[in-house]
Amino acid sequence: MELSEADIQPDLDRRKPGTSRHVTQRQEPDTVEILSGVYEGKTTGTPIALLIRNQDQRSKDYGNILETFRPGHADYTYWQKYGIRDPRGGGRSSARLTAPAVAAAAIAKKWLKQQYGTTFKGCMSQLGELPIVFESWDHVPNNPFFAANVSQIDALEAYMDALRKDGDSCGARIDVVASNVPVGLGEPLYDKLDAEIGYAMMGINAVKGVEIGAGFACVAQKGSQHGDEITRHGFLTNNAGGILGGISSGQDITVSIAIKPTSSIRTPRQSIDKLGNPATVETFGRHDPCVGIRATPIAEAMLALVLMDHALRHRAQCGDVKVERLVDPQ
Amino acid sequence: MELSEADIQPDLDRRKPGTSRHVTQRQEPDTVEILSGVYEGKTTGTPIALLIRNQDQRSKDYGNILETFRPGHADYTYWQKYGIRDPRGGGRSSARLTAPAVAAAAIAKKWLKQQYGTTFKGCMSQLGELPIVFESWDHVPNNPFFAANVSQIDALEAYMDALRKDGDSCGARIDVVASNVPVGLGEPLYDKLDAEIGYAMMGINAVKGVEIGAGFACVAQKGSQHGDEITRHGFLTNNAGGILGGISSGQDITVSIAIKPTSSIRTPRQSIDKLGNPATVETFGRHDPCVGIRATPIAEAMLALVLMDHALRHRAQCGDVKVERLVDPQ
Amino acid sequence: MELSEADIQPDLDRRKPGTSRHVTQRQEPDTVEILSGVYEGKTTGTPIALLIRNQDQRSKDYGNILETFRPGHADYTYWQKYGIRDPRGGGRSSARLTAPAVAAAAIAKKWLKQQYGTTFKGCMSQLGELPIVFESWDHVPNNPFFAANVSQIDALEAYMDALRKDGDSCGARIDVVASNVPVGLGEPLYDKLDAEIGYAMMGINAVKGVEIGAGFACVAQKGSQHGDEITRHGFLTNNAGGILGGISSGQDITVSIAIKPTSSIRTPRQSIDKLGNPATVETFGRHDPCVGIRATPIAEAMLALVLMDHALRHRAQCGDVKVERLVDPQ
Amino acid sequence: MELSEADIQPDLDRRKPGTSRHVTQRQEPDTVEILSGVYEGKTTGTPIALLIRNQDQRSKDYGNILETFRPGHADYTYWQKYGIRDPRGGGRSSARLTAPAVAAAAIAKKWLKQQYGTTFKGCMSQLGELPIVFESWDHVPNNPFFAANVSQIDALEAYMDALRKDGDSCGARIDVVASNVPVGLGEPLYDKLDAEIGYAMMGINAVKGVEIGAGFACVAQKGSQHGDEITRHGFLTNNAGGILGGISSGQDITVSIAIKPTSSIRTPRQSIDKLGNPATVETFGRHDPCVGIRATPIAEAMLALVLMDHALRHRAQCGDVKVERLVDPQ
Repeated sequence: MELSEADIQPDLDRRKPGTSRHVTQRQEPDTVEILSGVYEGKTTGTPIALLIRNQDQRSKDYGNILETFRPGHADYTYWQKYGIRDPRGGGRSSARLTAPAVAAAAIAKKWLKQQYGTTFKGCMSQLGELPIVFESWDHVPNNPFFAANVSQIDALEAYMDALRKDGDSCGARIDVVASNVPVGLGEPLYDKLDAEIGYAMMGINAVKGVEIGAGFACVAQKGSQHGDEITRHGFLTNNAGGILGGISSGQDITVSIAIKPTSSIRTPRQSIDKLGNPATVETFGRHDPCVGIRATPIAEAMLALVLMDHALRHRAQCGDVKVERLVDPQ
Repeated sequence: MELSEADIQPDLDRRKPGTSRHVTQRQEPDTVEILSGVYEGKTTGTPIALLIRNQDQRSKDYGNILETFRPGHADYTYWQKYGIRDPRGGGRSSARLTAPAVAAAAIAKKWLKQQYGTTFKGCMSQLGELPIVFESWDHVPNNPFFAANVSQIDALEAYMDALRKDGDSCGARIDVVASNVPVGLGEPLYDKLDAEIGYAMMGINAVKGVEIGAGFACVAQKGSQHGDEITRHGFLTNNAGGILGGISSGQDITVSIAIKPTSSIRTPRQSIDKLGNPATVETFGRHDPCVGIRATPIAEAMLALVLMDHALRHRAQCGDVKVERLVDPQ
Repeated sequence: MELSEADIQPDLDRRKPGTSRHVTQRQEPDTVEILSGVYEGKTTGTPIALLIRNQDQRSKDYGNILETFRPGHADYTYWQKYGIRDPRGGGRSSARLTAPAVAAAAIAKKWLKQQYGTTFKGCMSQLGELPIVFESWDHVPNNPFFAANVSQIDALEAYMDALRKDGDSCGARIDVVASNVPVGLGEPLYDKLDAEIGYAMMGINAVKGVEIGAGFACVAQKGSQHGDEITRHGFLTNNAGGILGGISSGQDITVSIAIKPTSSIRTPRQSIDKLGNPATVETFGRHDPCVGIRATPIAEAMLALVLMDHALRHRAQCGDVKVERLVDPQ
Repeated sequence: MELSEADIQPDLDRRKPGTSRHVTQRQEPDTVEILSGVYEGKTTGTPIALLIRNQDQRSKDYGNILETFRPGHADYTYWQKYGIRDPRGGGRSSARLTAPAVAAAAIAKKWLKQQYGTTFKGCMSQLGELPIVFESWDHVPNNPFFAANVSQIDALEAYMDALRKDGDSCGARIDVVASNVPVGLGEPLYDKLDAEIGYAMMGINAVKGVEIGAGFACVAQKGSQHGDEITRHGFLTNNAGGILGGISSGQDITVSIAIKPTSSIRTPRQSIDKLGNPATVETFGRHDPCVGIRATPIAEAMLALVLMDHALRHRAQCGDVKVERLVDPQ
């Protein structure tokens, strides 16, 4: 298919730092370069390599991090696993490593759109203690929070400003949706579609919870309420979140994730140093006070990569199965 | 290591059907046979194959299921994917397919115990609308719900009896914990420990949500509250659930899952048949009114399999890294 | 597709022991049982499990093998790797473990035949020092050697009889051919079709060499001789053995393998025991004096499995590429 | 471990083009850049990314190749698989793609040397019709052919000059050896060490045959001759090539490969164009008249990568198995 950097850059720009006062002030252009797999503007079928270089690293910012461990940060586990740590931008544990996933997913999104009309959208549904009321997808690109809301933006801004002033951070809940998903994606038993979504989402930095469809609310539901009734013209509800038995049903796939508060904060905290001695840790680098603010395009990206993978597998396995679709796409 | 069927059968017995009136009345002995990999009572290092045969299938019970789709069940997606369905015991989408995982995990548990002293426990923390108060792990084996509670058992029994009488079903929340986990398990970026736990748990039948540590509660936490402070003698809290940056910290690994209500219920529901015509579906087979009741040993098993896998990878990669453990095991 | 044990058993019977005086006299019916993945005679798209049980093991035959190492046998390496050895039938290192591959490949062959008309054939082209002249594929099923020859059978029988009398063994060369192969199977760079054939063939017990097309003869060829000229109606030669750049060309895929002499022989040989002390080893079990005699169906099976795998991958990747086939199938 | 570009560049320089008149005259400095995984001169345990950029491409050289298919080249199969072809440097089918493998293997070699003292060497043992007599490994770096010989160099030069004058090409046989290999590398049944060597070697561009140890010569050997007798102080021969039952024995691993003649030659050959019409093909780009000349470091690299992979797996699986080594390393 046709492919150029211009297909990839917009999603990277949605994720990149430095775009509002509520995120890290590091200036990373996040410019992507296609290294291979494209010839005269078309993919050749061979592997596509992308390169995004880091630009704005101030190693001195990380000076004091090297000797102590930030509570809630991978500092400690990396040190205990490897006995060596690359502190620049957090090294391998940095959310910066989600940029390549966003870039790769931009290609997956383009392909899924061409093949099936599949589209992706996402929004923040809670910022710290503030639930964000869903008003319209149209609002999402018009505020720094990816909120599907216009009336709460001032309150969100004020909440973040207070947090920054306090030298503290907060969590967020992100919702993502894939629409026009083909029916039949996902494997029986192993590599179920929901299992792979669980893997992809829980693998995003700072994610501590994943829900599909009704999520944890299903615990208190009755079977007569949870099971989505079926008509020829569509399902009547979507508690399943578009997946039944690990296989897509053709309904929207709906996923929510919980993102923990940033661990790099100015507030002093109790910890130890590399020798095991007690230490007080305060962090002064340019960190996001809420990593969830930039997480929406990342969560969309992970969902797109999982669907792309399963769309290819489905074609391998069921290439010759032509089962009439019984329920209209919604 | 030494291995016989006697190491595996007890976990299978915890999971097997027919042990109380609250679960399916199918009688499946779930007897395991070791086919390979063990010689004179010891593992040989070569692959271990296990065989568990189905015994109690009443194909006639599934007669009417074949023509229509149960709302909330994989009936529909299997049919749309493959154009053929094996209805016996639900075929590949049956929770019966968790038996092999439980059997395999019994071997993993034995090995992890020998190597690191790692142990696993789990309990149900909510049944339908009823939260179950944690009292003591000692209660878990003494009631059919895997509840860490003795005073609420009558209420749980009454809840299930009413549900069964109504021909309905309910969900459940299950908590599992791994203790004495080595520090350093998990890969950077890909195959993080939490990503693999997300995969394993979301791949269990009927699971719609997964949380690690504080889970979704982390959204409303501040960074100064969420990040677990560190002392030489242990972490002061465990919001991280034992995983930082995708790598185990040596704290207990704590995971919660949401299990949806069984979709095979007697209550009539609106659906379609294989020709797309409207149909009313009622299910009369011997199904669990709450599949969550038998899910505790399954969730423990999945956690054990993930840790075993990562323990082996860790040994491959860091075999020669000897980093002094800075925080005492807790 | 339709599938029953009757589709699989004939290939197992071609491989099974005890069918002539030139192979091991163990009596293994090698009866296959389909455990899963087939419902009412049709595959359901879910994994197919097959079971073949060992029947004729005389553990006492292996008594003396347990304490010493047969020269040229995996006895030594298994012991040094695992510190434990299952001697029954050679355990994991036994050629018996090719039976499951033959069974699985019977399914692959049926599918490839249905999809593309692909067929497989093979023959022995050298037995010890005796090259076997190719006369006709028709002769292959009519002699115990899978020789494409009728006039040399007496000589081959005499050669084997003398060998058996001497308590010695010999090697063999096996040729296999896949015809009506689709063009385009194989991946660029990694997982080339020839790389996977190299893997599959070298993984057969006792194989020490693999050739594709002209094989080692290509070393002394000129480029003007080796490169197969192309016409609309076919290639003029097949030095490539049907693979160019790791991708199938649509020509016959031709592969040859070298099988070493059996290491379990009556002739006394110098070795050591498990304590490292010098020992003389003679083997009295019921072993094949030439494992190559039963290797033809195994080599066909491995080729079929590789092609099946790549046919599925091709469908995943190029499902929508419709390139007109420029050279007629041959 | 310590790592810098200086550890990698020498092996790349051994492989790079333009170093004698017998190889392609393209000037590619093949300079490697370490992008990730190294911090202050030490590996961090996280993935290492390397970048080698192409420099000297003359797209016009490939003008006429785009419309026709070179006999014996992947032109045809790439076109039939993908319907698009990147002709620059041969695209994905170019031997240029072996440079990254050589770079990665330089790291593997350094690690294997540190861990086990494992070393690698290789030489050309036949050039076209000329067998090259082995004299001493010392000669290998002192001639453009990687010949372990000093007296035949003039003859080899003359052979190549004549070939170039004729506009033709020739094949080569390459031998590689790994010494000080630990005993016990390789898996039972799947992922045998020899299977993976078969995969790695057959995956090198232009390879049509692979032998381990005695290779095809084993066909005519008796068991009493082939099986390497064992003493406490070493094996008496090495027909096995250091691998028994798919597992390393601790002997030298010896592998030979057959490399076909280059298909890009000046001699006119019969072919077709992209429309299927007859065409005569002559190639004028700057191609190696014998790709085998630069293949020795590539074959060493592939062997090193396979051993590295298996060394890590071995550590995962047998980390706690301490079996006394019964045969002294040789």
